[in-house]
Amino acid sequence: MRIFLFLFVNVLFADPLPSWNEGETKNRIIEFVRVITDSQNPNFIPVEDRIATFDQDGTLWVEQPLYTQFIFALNQIKKKASEHPEWKDQEPYKWVIENNVEKFKTITEQDIAKIIAVTHAGLSVHQFYELVGQFLKTAEHPRFKRPFTELVYQPMIELISYLQDNQFKTYIVSGGGQEFMRVYAKRVYNIPHEQIIGSAGKTKYHYNDGKPYLEKLPAVLYIDDKEGKPEAINLIIGKKPVAAFGNSDGDRQMLEWTQSGEGKRLELLVHHDDADREYAYGPDSKIGTFSESLMQEAREKKWIVVSMKDDWKKIFSWE
Amino acid sequence: MRIFLFLFVNVLFADPLPSWNEGETKNRIIEFVRVITDSQNPNFIPVEDRIATFDQDGTLWVEQPLYTQFIFALNQIKKKASEHPEWKDQEPYKWVIENNVEKFKTITEQDIAKIIAVTHAGLSVHQFYELVGQFLKTAEHPRFKRPFTELVYQPMIELISYLQDNQFKTYIVSGGGQEFMRVYAKRVYNIPHEQIIGSAGKTKYHYNDGKPYLEKLPAVLYIDDKEGKPEAINLIIGKKPVAAFGNSDGDRQMLEWTQSGEGKRLELLVHHDDADREYAYGPDSKIGTFSESLMQEAREKKWIVVSMKDDWKKIFSWE
Repeated sequence: MRIFLFLFVNVLFADPLPSWNEGETKNRIIEFVRVITDSQNPNFIPVEDRIATFDQDGTLWVEQPLYTQFIFALNQIKKKASEHPEWKDQEPYKWVIENNVEKFKTITEQDIAKIIAVTHAGLSVHQFYELVGQFLKTAEHPRFKRPFTELVYQPMIELISYLQDNQFKTYIVSGGGQEFMRVYAKRVYNIPHEQIIGSAGKTKYHYNDGKPYLEKLPAVLYIDDKEGKPEAINLIIGKKPVAAFGNSDGDRQMLEWTQSGEGKRLELLVHHDDADREYAYGPDSKIGTFSESLMQEAREKKWIVVSMKDDWKKIFSWE
Repeated sequence: MRIFLFLFVNVLFADPLPSWNEGETKNRIIEFVRVITDSQNPNFIPVEDRIATFDQDGTLWVEQPLYTQFIFALNQIKKKASEHPEWKDQEPYKWVIENNVEKFKTITEQDIAKIIAVTHAGLSVHQFYELVGQFLKTAEHPRFKRPFTELVYQPMIELISYLQDNQFKTYIVSGGGQEFMRVYAKRVYNIPHEQIIGSAGKTKYHYNDGKPYLEKLPAVLYIDDKEGKPEAINLIIGKKPVAAFGNSDGDRQMLEWTQSGEGKRLELLVHHDDADREYAYGPDSKIGTFSESLMQEAREKKWIVVSMKDDWKKIFSWE
C-alpha cells in the first residue's frame, strides 16, 4: 500500500521539467499542457491532434561551430580524397583537405550541396546508415570532446518526454538530412523513424542478385527549411502542429503555421545567450541565425523565447 | 461474473475476420499474426516494427470502371468547362465534355497528368479538401449507385482492424493522391492523415492578409506507384513493412521490398475474379493490371493470392 501511495504522489507532484528553472517560461509550458489535456477545458485538444514539431540543430543539440551532419560530410571528403586527386585543386574540396577554416566561413549553399552530393550519394540507404553510425561512434565535438549524440540539451529531452507522456506525437522537423537523423533519433530522442522529417534526397529502387535495395541519388527531393518546413509537415503529417519548437530564422514559418491553427497553441524559440556553458549567437551568425526581425515577430506574437542562460538549470545531462 | 466470463470467452474465440471464408488464405493470415505477436516465438516482431502497408484502389475499394479520383477530376473538368471555352477543341478535355468513353480508353499518362494538374492545382490544400468532401457527398458509382466511400471491401476493413488490434501501424500506400485520400481515410479506414502515402504534388507556402496557407502547385513531387512505392515508404516511414497488401502490377515492388526483410513477413494480392458481385479482370485491364508475370512471381514467392469469389463471404458491408 505504501508503495502505491508513493507512486501516486510521485506521479501527481513530480516535476516533469527538472532541468528548467522556475519562472514564466516553465509555467507557460506546463499551463499549456494542463489546459489542452483537460477534457473539461474549452482548450482541450483530442489525442489524435496532439502533434508537436521540433527543429533539431540548435534546438535539440549543439549546432556550433558547424552542423554535425556537415562535419560528417567533411570527414567523408577527407576519407575519399585519395580516390579523387583532382579535389586538391577544386573548391570547395581543397578547403576541406587543407583544413582552411577561414575559407569555410565563405562557403555557399551550392558548395554545401556539392559536398553533400558527393558524400551521401551512390550508396544504398542501408550503407549510408552504417557509415553515419560509424562516424557517430568515433567523432568528437572540437570543444566539448564528447560524441555529438551527447550534446543534446537535457531540458529539451525532458520536454519531448513530457509531451509524449501527455500523448503528443513528437516529430523532428529539421533542415538536416532525414536519413542522417534516423540513425540516432530513436536512441537519443525516443523519436521513431516515421516521425523524422528532414531534407530529403531522391532514391532509386534497384536489384542486386534479385534482392531489392534503394540507392541514394545525388538529387534533392525537398529542403526542409523555412517555407519548406510547413510544406513538409503538410506532406508527411497532413495536420497542423499544435506546438512547435525552434531556434532560428529557419523555424519562423513552422511557428507561424502552428499558430495559424484554431485554439490554443504553443510556439517556442531557444535563444543561445550562454557563451560560458554553450554558445552565444544571434543575428550575425551564419549558422542558426536569429535575426532582429524574428525577435520582433516573437514579441508581437507572444512566442516564448527561452534564455538558455536564465531558463535552463543545466544544459547537458553530464554537467 | 457471468458477463466477465462472456467477455473473456468472446475475446479469446471471436472470429477477427468474419467476412472471410474458412480455408488456407484465412488461416495463413491468422497464423502470421499469431506467431509475430507471440513474444516466446522466434518470429516475434516488436510493436515498433509492426508496419503494414495497403494499396488502396482495387485492394481496399472498387477501382472499376475508373479510379474514383479520376472520376472526381472529370467531374471538376465539367464544372470548369464554361470558364474554358477552348477545351471543347482540346484533347483530352473535349473527350470529357463530350462524354466520349471510347476515347477515354486510349488516354495516356500525360493526359491524366494534364487533367489532374488543371483540376487539383491553384487551390489551397484546405480548399481542395472541401472540394473533395463535396464530391464524395454527392457522387455515385455508375453500377452500384452508392457513394464511393461505401464501396470499400468489408473483408479488408476487418483485416485493417485486426492488425490494428494487434498493434500494427497501418498505412495506405497508393498511386492515388495523398491529399485526396486524407479527406475520407480516417472515417472509412480508421487510418489517420500521417499514415496516408500517395502520389504527391508540390505546395507553396504563402500569406493571405498575414495568415499563412499552402497553395497546391501543378507540379509532381513523386508518383507513388511501382518502384515509387518502396521509395515513398522509405521516405515517409523509413522502415521496411512486415506485411503488404496489393492487387496489381503497381504493388509488385512494395511486396518484394516487404519480403526482402529478415524474419517472417506477409504478402497478399487481391485477385478480382468475381464479375457477379464486383468485377473480374487481370492481365488485359488497363486499370488494375494483374499480369501473368505477377501471378508467376506470386506463386514462386508464396505470396497469398486472394480469390474474391472463393475467399470472401461478402464483399461490401451492405450486401
